[in-house]
Amino acid sequence: MALSKLPYKGTRDFFPPQMRQRDFLFQKMREIAELHSYEPYDGPLLEEVDLYLAKSGEELINEQIYSFIDRGERKVAIRPEMTPTVARMVAQIHKEQSKPLRWYAIPNLMRYEKPQKGRLREHWQFNCDIFGAPEGLGEIEILQVASGLLKSFGATEEHFEILINDRRIVDAIFNNLLKLSAEQSHKLYKIIDKSKKVSPEALDKMISEIISNDLTKNHFKEYLKLDSVASVISFLERHALKDSAAGFIAFSDRLQSSGLSKFVIYDPTIVRGLDYYTGIVFEIFDKSPDNRRAICGGGAYANLLQIFNEDPLPGVGFGLGDVTLADFLKTHGLLKEFEKPDIGVLVAYLDASSEAVAMELSRKLRSLGLNTELYLGEAKPKKIFSHTDKRGHKGVIMIGSNEVQTGEVEIKRLTDQEKARLKIESPELIKKFLE
Amino acid sequence: MALSKLPYKGTRDFFPPQMRQRDFLFQKMREIAELHSYEPYDGPLLEEVDLYLAKSGEELINEQIYSFIDRGERKVAIRPEMTPTVARMVAQIHKEQSKPLRWYAIPNLMRYEKPQKGRLREHWQFNCDIFGAPEGLGEIEILQVASGLLKSFGATEEHFEILINDRRIVDAIFNNLLKLSAEQSHKLYKIIDKSKKVSPEALDKMISEIISNDLTKNHFKEYLKLDSVASVISFLERHALKDSAAGFIAFSDRLQSSGLSKFVIYDPTIVRGLDYYTGIVFEIFDKSPDNRRAICGGGAYANLLQIFNEDPLPGVGFGLGDVTLADFLKTHGLLKEFEKPDIGVLVAYLDASSEAVAMELSRKLRSLGLNTELYLGEAKPKKIFSHTDKRGHKGVIMIGSNEVQTGEVEIKRLTDQEKARLKIESPELIKKFLE
Repeated sequence: MALSKLPYKGTRDFFPPQMRQRDFLFQKMREIAELHSYEPYDGPLLEEVDLYLAKSGEELINEQIYSFIDRGERKVAIRPEMTPTVARMVAQIHKEQSKPLRWYAIPNLMRYEKPQKGRLREHWQFNCDIFGAPEGLGEIEILQVASGLLKSFGATEEHFEILINDRRIVDAIFNNLLKLSAEQSHKLYKIIDKSKKVSPEALDKMISEIISNDLTKNHFKEYLKLDSVASVISFLERHALKDSAAGFIAFSDRLQSSGLSKFVIYDPTIVRGLDYYTGIVFEIFDKSPDNRRAICGGGAYANLLQIFNEDPLPGVGFGLGDVTLADFLKTHGLLKEFEKPDIGVLVAYLDASSEAVAMELSRKLRSLGLNTELYLGEAKPKKIFSHTDKRGHKGVIMIGSNEVQTGEVEIKRLTDQEKARLKIESPELIKKFLE
Repeated sequence: MALSKLPYKGTRDFFPPQMRQRDFLFQKMREIAELHSYEPYDGPLLEEVDLYLAKSGEELINEQIYSFIDRGERKVAIRPEMTPTVARMVAQIHKEQSKPLRWYAIPNLMRYEKPQKGRLREHWQFNCDIFGAPEGLGEIEILQVASGLLKSFGATEEHFEILINDRRIVDAIFNNLLKLSAEQSHKLYKIIDKSKKVSPEALDKMISEIISNDLTKNHFKEYLKLDSVASVISFLERHALKDSAAGFIAFSDRLQSSGLSKFVIYDPTIVRGLDYYTGIVFEIFDKSPDNRRAICGGGAYANLLQIFNEDPLPGVGFGLGDVTLADFLKTHGLLKEFEKPDIGVLVAYLDASSEAVAMELSRKLRSLGLNTELYLGEAKPKKIFSHTDKRGHKGVIMIGSNEVQTGEVEIKRLTDQEKARLKIESPELIKKFLE
């Protein structure tokens, strides 16, 4: 039986058009991160499973991670996310470094899950984190980087919105107003995540399974209706919980001078529940009804270094997947085509005795930085032009015995069909003619 | 017990200086590939184990691959090399594409082996392949790409050499002159790989274990002494095997016009034995006695698509690892430093009331493409200058109440300590001043 030619389930083959698109997206990520003075890092593909257990607990590990035992009896996993790795790396060096640390990476990650639109088993994720920034300022900057990436493709407030919340507020409501046990809180966090995807009746039923007291239930439903910073503040004031909002209020004030306020909306259902966040949390959403989903999620966390017995170092970060980014850009017509390669010139030769000259000219053009394809083998002019049509070269040069004798070639610029006769000894003029 | 902060055995953490170096090396790889009209591709991190079994046989699989059973009972492996993946992908699309296909990738790969200098469990490998090129021409071009990469860092024939051989010649000698069985050939291929690393006595002993006939043994030893294209041809002529060298002779002739001949040396020990090569094979070696090792290996293969029941499509390719490349460049002092990030300007503010103006100026400078760090929190001038010293900014701007009032800031260019007073409303002049 012949082997399968298809990629492993939930993964992708990147043929050149798809790979050019990926390279383009990654290049934009690197540019926007560097513009904000973030520095690149990367970690290993494999980590010991203990690292993920310490952060996420058994649940995620067993269900969603590719893990196995290596020959040295170590339990290892293919990284499903980057945060544990970056925490491990920062734990190594944070004492010697001046703060804040601003780091970014674009790792490939694998999660064991059912492939669906926007969710694959293998994807790449743009990760940015800032460690040790003064309270409130890291949050603003991280949102600027994330939204700056989308804006760099031409996206505006018509295309996306930033939904925000604050775990300090949610925790205050859960603990002090609703007076929930740790177990109830845990369950309710999960429900909040789903609350917009189910009917009001189904939601009511789910809530009733956790909260029996009617007054408590009503308080929670009231919370779920909050839809602006002002409404949250007033809700907290009414319930004598305004202290919990101090960080959130300072953050909201800063949004004004940050250029972000036109994107930001308060949303009580954004909690990023089972994760490690302890402050501001956010998700960037596509506003199109055809692609109503999160493109990016993140927030502030205080205790990531704890598992390494290191002093606390506050951080803020986000992750943004390559699949959801491309879906977002395509939904809004913000992604160009990558069908054809970017080749400056095709050099062809008509007979074997011209091969050496064609080879040498190609070498010279490349040394000037011009992407050059040498047509391999003796060329037939008709084939050459169907080839340049398909591949989109900017120009073409054909070399025969006449060109070898005179030392001059005719270059045809395919963008406007202009021609010129130029000396082989002056490859810089050939390059210039194509610019 | 606290978790380990170190990376998994045989893998690396790339902190920003190391990651900037890696990005620099990868960018050079992409540039040199695109200069030669090669197109980017990538495949999945995981492949089904059958793909590697079909190509390499049980031995490599069991000893050197990270493999495991997934929850769907599929036997999968983390890719240890890229060739099976590229063959699988080419098998999908080669019928519809005009030839040759020129493809490159820079995948991360994992091999289960004892970490040692130049060999880690996780590494990245620059892979270039050309499929469907006329005989002999793909070989030349692939060598130009591989050597072109090294030359792009300033390496010359003083630093590296290309050792070549031809599997058709070796096979002719093994089958028709030495008349070895398949099993003997297999063993001898392994010995050849080691022949330069052991003493003449040890080599003699190893050979005697496979070949008992003295005449045969002497023929083989004579083969191992060949050291030039001319000596190979004459050896083959003497043994009536010159027909096997037709491809090799045509290839050698072409080396002259390719600019490669000053790098190329015939070496009978280059066979890339247990691999899938069927024609020209080569390894690029560091010439320094301090780092005498292969930087890159490759060759021509005819039958890679067979395992997919596809028609044969000849290919030529090479792989070049990031670790061996960096070792080579460092050995010859051809790699610059990457300690400091590339940040254009630091914008700092001296009091809270200047924060909004500093934030806005940073935004404007970034929108002009200038990498800008905003110093977060109220700055003390002394701290600012120790910070710019460490990080190597090109310029610094400090904003206080005076600057906010006048709408003008002083920018200090740190490369030559020049200063200028410029309007906040003209960020393009600030950018220009730093160029």
